[in-house]
Amino acid sequence: MRAAMARAEVGDNVLDGDPTVEELEQRSAALLGMPAALWTPSGTMANLVALSLHLSRGDRFLAPRDAHVLVNELGSAAWLAGGMPFPLEHDAGPGRPTLSTLRNAVGPADGPYYALRTTLLCLENTHNAAGGAVTPPHEHAQLVATAKEAGLRVHLDGARIWHAATSLDLPPAALTVGVDSVAACFSKGLGAPVGSVLAGSEEFIERAKRMRQMLGGGTRQAGVLAAACLVALDQMSELHEDHENARRLAEGLIELGWQVATPETNIVLAGVADVPRSLYALESMGIRALSMAGKVRFVTHRDISAPDVEEALHRIKSATA
Amino acid sequence: MRAAMARAEVGDNVLDGDPTVEELEQRSAALLGMPAALWTPSGTMANLVALSLHLSRGDRFLAPRDAHVLVNELGSAAWLAGGMPFPLEHDAGPGRPTLSTLRNAVGPADGPYYALRTTLLCLENTHNAAGGAVTPPHEHAQLVATAKEAGLRVHLDGARIWHAATSLDLPPAALTVGVDSVAACFSKGLGAPVGSVLAGSEEFIERAKRMRQMLGGGTRQAGVLAAACLVALDQMSELHEDHENARRLAEGLIELGWQVATPETNIVLAGVADVPRSLYALESMGIRALSMAGKVRFVTHRDISAPDVEEALHRIKSATA
Amino acid sequence: MRAAMARAEVGDNVLDGDPTVEELEQRSAALLGMPAALWTPSGTMANLVALSLHLSRGDRFLAPRDAHVLVNELGSAAWLAGGMPFPLEHDAGPGRPTLSTLRNAVGPADGPYYALRTTLLCLENTHNAAGGAVTPPHEHAQLVATAKEAGLRVHLDGARIWHAATSLDLPPAALTVGVDSVAACFSKGLGAPVGSVLAGSEEFIERAKRMRQMLGGGTRQAGVLAAACLVALDQMSELHEDHENARRLAEGLIELGWQVATPETNIVLAGVADVPRSLYALESMGIRALSMAGKVRFVTHRDISAPDVEEALHRIKSATA
Amino acid sequence: MRAAMARAEVGDNVLDGDPTVEELEQRSAALLGMPAALWTPSGTMANLVALSLHLSRGDRFLAPRDAHVLVNELGSAAWLAGGMPFPLEHDAGPGRPTLSTLRNAVGPADGPYYALRTTLLCLENTHNAAGGAVTPPHEHAQLVATAKEAGLRVHLDGARIWHAATSLDLPPAALTVGVDSVAACFSKGLGAPVGSVLAGSEEFIERAKRMRQMLGGGTRQAGVLAAACLVALDQMSELHEDHENARRLAEGLIELGWQVATPETNIVLAGVADVPRSLYALESMGIRALSMAGKVRFVTHRDISAPDVEEALHRIKSATA
Repeated sequence: MRAAMARAEVGDNVLDGDPTVEELEQRSAALLGMPAALWTPSGTMANLVALSLHLSRGDRFLAPRDAHVLVNELGSAAWLAGGMPFPLEHDAGPGRPTLSTLRNAVGPADGPYYALRTTLLCLENTHNAAGGAVTPPHEHAQLVATAKEAGLRVHLDGARIWHAATSLDLPPAALTVGVDSVAACFSKGLGAPVGSVLAGSEEFIERAKRMRQMLGGGTRQAGVLAAACLVALDQMSELHEDHENARRLAEGLIELGWQVATPETNIVLAGVADVPRSLYALESMGIRALSMAGKVRFVTHRDISAPDVEEALHRIKSATA
Repeated sequence: MRAAMARAEVGDNVLDGDPTVEELEQRSAALLGMPAALWTPSGTMANLVALSLHLSRGDRFLAPRDAHVLVNELGSAAWLAGGMPFPLEHDAGPGRPTLSTLRNAVGPADGPYYALRTTLLCLENTHNAAGGAVTPPHEHAQLVATAKEAGLRVHLDGARIWHAATSLDLPPAALTVGVDSVAACFSKGLGAPVGSVLAGSEEFIERAKRMRQMLGGGTRQAGVLAAACLVALDQMSELHEDHENARRLAEGLIELGWQVATPETNIVLAGVADVPRSLYALESMGIRALSMAGKVRFVTHRDISAPDVEEALHRIKSATA
Repeated sequence: MRAAMARAEVGDNVLDGDPTVEELEQRSAALLGMPAALWTPSGTMANLVALSLHLSRGDRFLAPRDAHVLVNELGSAAWLAGGMPFPLEHDAGPGRPTLSTLRNAVGPADGPYYALRTTLLCLENTHNAAGGAVTPPHEHAQLVATAKEAGLRVHLDGARIWHAATSLDLPPAALTVGVDSVAACFSKGLGAPVGSVLAGSEEFIERAKRMRQMLGGGTRQAGVLAAACLVALDQMSELHEDHENARRLAEGLIELGWQVATPETNIVLAGVADVPRSLYALESMGIRALSMAGKVRFVTHRDISAPDVEEALHRIKSATA
Repeated sequence: MRAAMARAEVGDNVLDGDPTVEELEQRSAALLGMPAALWTPSGTMANLVALSLHLSRGDRFLAPRDAHVLVNELGSAAWLAGGMPFPLEHDAGPGRPTLSTLRNAVGPADGPYYALRTTLLCLENTHNAAGGAVTPPHEHAQLVATAKEAGLRVHLDGARIWHAATSLDLPPAALTVGVDSVAACFSKGLGAPVGSVLAGSEEFIERAKRMRQMLGGGTRQAGVLAAACLVALDQMSELHEDHENARRLAEGLIELGWQVATPETNIVLAGVADVPRSLYALESMGIRALSMAGKVRFVTHRDISAPDVEEALHRIKSATA
C-alpha cells in the first residue's frame, strides 16, 4: 500500500483533477453500481455531503435506530444538512426495520404547509451499532421500493458495504439497488489510511463536489491517498478472513461465558455489566476494544490474524481464571 | 378583549419598550415563577428562541416522543437551534417518560470529543400529542432533578401550562420548579389573538430578546396584542369549564362507541379507522377537529359552551344512526 | 385605527386563514403590482423569509452599501438565509449603485464549481441609511434589467416604498417593475402598530408561508393587526405631509448651521461632531432621534405635525443660543 | 517526500492519535509561536474551523477586501461560521488596511441589543488576491493591538505565512504576534500533497478538534500525509528561490510591455485586457496561470526553476512577436 502511494501519479484535485483519484472514483462507482463517485477525506464527510444535498429545512428523514448518521456524526445531519431525524425500530432484525414500520413512519404525503415532510430514508449496511448486521438484498430492495413509493429519496451509508457483500458473497452493487446515493469507506475494514467515496448520479456528484469544497474537503494531490484506496479494493477478497476471525472470537468468548451474538461480519458485540471497567481490563491485557451501543465492541481487520484471536482469547481466559 | 386592545398604551417595543408588553411580561414571569419574561408573536418562536440559546452544534436534546418541538415546528430545533433530538418513550404515562428512561437516554457525561453531548431536556406540560396529558408536580420535579444531576439544562414547553395548572388546581409556578426556561401561550386555550411568552433568568431573557430580533420577531407597538393577552390571563380561571366540556364530550363519544380516553384537560383524542375520512364527515356536520398523532383531536375552548358539546354529540349520533 | 382593530373579523391564520389578513394581503399585492402577498410580524422577517428562499449556501448577493439587510438584521441574510454579501457603492447617488458597479460586482456567469455564484440583487427603496433616498423608476428598471441579464433574481426591500411612491407621485407598483419579491412595512412611516408584507409570485408566496411558519412568524387571529394595516394603507396619501415637514426641519437645521442634506422623503440625516452627545442633548430637549450611519437621524411621521417641527427647531435654537 | 510518506509511523488520528500527525502539530505550533496546533485536510477547513469557533450568529467580522475567507471559501464564513462580513479597504498598501479604516469599521462597543456586534478581525499574510502581498510585523502588531483594544479576537489566515516570513527573513512566529488563531498551509507553496494546520491556545485547539470532526475532517492514519508536510517544513528555506523566480518573471513580463507590479513573494499578478483570452493563449503555449481579482495570476513554486521562467518568457515573447 505504501509502495503504491509512493509511486502514485497525482494532479490538483480541486482545480483540474488528479488521475489516481479519478481512477479510484471510476472504479468505486462501477463496484457500487452507480454512474459516478467522489472521493472524500472521511466517511462522515461522505454522509454529510449526501444528506446536505438530499435534505432541506423542514424535511424529516428516517434511519434505523442508532444509525451512524444519528449517533456518530455530531448531529450534522440535523444542524448542517437540515433534517429532523426519526429513528426506525430494528423490528425485522438487527439494524433492519420492517416495511410496516417504514410505512407508518413516513406519514401522509399531502400534509399541510406547516408540517414536516418526510423526504429521505437513510439505510446502513452493514449496520455498525447493530454489530455489523447485514441487510440481505431482497429486504434492501423492498425497503427501497417502499420508500420510493412514498416519494422518498434513499441514501445508503455503506461504510461497511464491502463486509455486507463479502458476507453474502455478492458484488457490492447487488446491495445498492435503487438508492440515490451510497457512501463507502476505504479506511476502516479495508485498511487504507484515509478516504471514503460518495456515489450517485452524474448530476448529484457534480453538486457533491461543490458541497465537499464548502466543507473544506477539497484536497490537492489526493492521489497519494487514492493509491492506497485502490490497493484496499484489490484486497477486498480477504475480508472473509476477518469474518472467520470474528466468528472464532465470538465462539471463544461464548465458551468463556460472555454474552455475545454470533457475528455476521467483522464486529463482535459483547454485553458486559460495566463497559468502561471491561474496556480497562482488556486494555491492560493488550486487547483493544471500544464502547458502542452500551456494549463492548471488538473488530477484526487485516492486522488481526487467526493466532491473534486465539492469543486474545487466551489472555482473557487467563485473566478471568 | 377588543376593548382592552383599543385602549392599550403602547411604545416601540424594539427600541425602548412598550408599557403594556412590559406589564404582560412582568405578570407572566411572576405567574410562571421566573425572574423575567419576553413576549413573542408565537409559541413556536418562544420555543425556537429558547432552544437556540440552550443548544449548540454537537448537542443532543431529549424530549418526550411526539413533543411539539419534535413534530410541530418544522425541524427548527434541529436545523436552526442546532440540536440532534432523541425522543423519550411515554413509559410513565401519557406524555411522561420514567426516570430510568431519562437516565438511560442521557449517556455518559465524560464522552470523547467526537461524541454528541446531551445537554438539554425539553418537557411539555400539558403534552399536546398525548391528548393534553398533565405531568403532576412531583413527577416534574423528579425529572428536572434527574436532568440537573446529569448536567442538563431544562426547557419546559408550557404552551398549555395554564391547563395543567387548572387541572391540578395549582398555580402555574408549581409546575416550573427547577427549569431554566418556560414557554407559555396566550393564543390557544387562553383565547388571545396573538402572542406567547418565554420566561427565564434576567440574563437569559436579555439574550432571548436579541435572538427574537434575529428571527424577525421584534415588533413595534405590540402593546395592542399584549393588552388582549392580559385579559386572557384574567380569565384563566374559566379554563376548568373547558375541561368539563372536554370530559362531557369524551363521555358522550364513548357512549356512541368511540375509542376515547378520558381527557385530563381540554383535548379529546379519538382513535378512528380512517382519520381523513372522519375529519371530512365531522366537517360536513359543522364540527371542526384536526388530525394529530394518528387520531382525531377535538379541543374545547372559550368559544365552545356546554350546549355546543351536546349539540355536537347530537349531530354525531344522528349522522351515525 | 384602534376602532378598526376592535371590529376586525378574524380567523386562524395558521390553519385556514383570517379574512382580514387575506384582505390586507390581496390589497397589498395589488398595490405592489405582484400576484400574491403574505403578512409577516415584521419587516425584518419579510426580508429574512425572502432571502431564505432566494439564497442557498455558496450564493453571493449584492446590495447597496449600508442596506438594511446588511447592517440592521443581525446578519440573518448570511447565517440563516445563507448568502455571502457583497456591498455596492452608492456611486449613482444616495443609496443607488451605477449599472457598471452592478455589472462589475456580478462576476463571470460560468465560474468554476469552487467559486461563489452571484444569484441575487437586493435593492432598497427608499434607502434608509442613505437618508430615505429615492431610486427613480427608470433607474430601478435599468438595475433590474442588468441584474436579470446576468441571471440574478431581484428582491426589493420596500419597507419605505410608500414614501418613495409618494415622493415621486407614482403608484408603488411603478417601483417594483421586474422584481421577484418585495417587502413593504406598515408599522414605520405608515403608523400601524405591527406588520409587514412580502409580495411575489403565487408559488413564491406558498413557500414563503412555510418559511414564515419555520421562523415562528405564524400567528393565529392576526386580523386584529391587519385591520390596522388596512387603515394605514387608506391614509397613505397623507405621507406627503411628513415629507414637507422633513424638508422644513432640514431647512431650519441648515439655517441653524447644521450639516444636513435636503431630504427626499421623511428622513433627515444630520452630520454632527459627536453623535451620542448630540442625541443626549436632543433627548434632554424632548426631541427624539437615532444614530444611523454615523449621523443623527430624524424621522417625521403621522404623529409629528408642522408646529411640532417648528417647536423642535425653536428648542434647538434656544439650547444652542 | 514520497519516501517519508512510505515510512511514516501512523495511528488512528480520530481515536487516540497518530504520532506523525502529532509531531507535525507540535512542530507547526512552535514555528507559528502558538501553544497548540491541529492538522486539517485543507486550508479552507482550517479557516472554517477557526471562524466557526470565533463567530456566533449576530456577529460581524472584518477582513481586508478580497480576502480568501470572503471570496474563495464559498461563503462558509457566513452561512456556517455565522458571521456577517465587512470588507476593509487596502488603503495602507496591497492587502493592508490602515488603522483608521479598521477603527472606523469596528463601530461602537456598546451598541444596542438589536445591532450586529463586531467581534473578529481576520487578517491574511501574505494576501493572495493582493498578489502575495506581505504585511510587515510592525503593521501586523498595530492592527492586532487596535483590534484587541476594541475587544475583537484576531484570526490570521496564514496559508502563505511561510512566504511572508521568507520575504522578510523572519521566523513565522514574528508574524503571528497577538493573534488568537492562525491557519497555515503545507500544500500550496510548500509543496506537500495534502494538509494544513490551525494553531491557537490549548483550549481552542481542543474545541477545534471537535469542530473538525463535525465537518468530516477527522481522518484515520493521516500520518502518511503529515510525513510529507514535515518534509515540506524542512525545505522551507528554499522558498526564496521561488520569490526570485517570481521577480524575474515580473521583470521579463514588464520588458514585454505587460502591466505587472513587482511581486513581494511568489505571486505575479498581470493586468490584461481580457483575462479568459489571455489564459487561453498562455495555456496554448504550455504556461499555466489562473484568473484572480480580475487579473492573470502566475505562481512560482518548487517545481518551477529559473530556466522554466526564462522559457516561459521566451514563449510569450515569441507568441506576441
